[in-house]
Amino acid sequence: MELPRAPLERIMRNAGAERVSGDAVEALRSEVEDVAKELANEAVQASKHADRKTIKRDDVHLASH
Amino acid sequence: MELPRAPLERIMRNAGAERVSGDAVEALRSEVEDVAKELANEAVQASKHADRKTIKRDDVHLASH
Repeated sequence: MELPRAPLERIMRNAGAERVSGDAVEALRSEVEDVAKELANEAVQASKHADRKTIKRDDVHLASH
Repeated sequence: MELPRAPLERIMRNAGAERVSGDAVEALRSEVEDVAKELANEAVQASKHADRKTIKRDDVHLASH
């Protein structure tokens, strides 16, 4: 559990939520973290493929397409 | 820009990144926020569909499948 709850709840309110249950915030955090980890893994693979030890923006872009 | 940088950088390091450029963290934040907003929008739609004003866990689950 890396991402904080508050900004995720704010994103739900900005999407038009009047009330948000605690479980819903937790579910959103879980889904969003899974996506972040998947993208991070693919970005690391992309950087290795390019023989770099530094993850660059292009690695994340490649991972997300 | 809702999500903080530090946990996203941590996720990249946990994925095996030795070094992470600032641009890469920013790109990951942007991608992950887009996903969060999309899920939040769909969850709000799901709650309206169920005639509720409270977003529940099941709304997020429906949105993410």
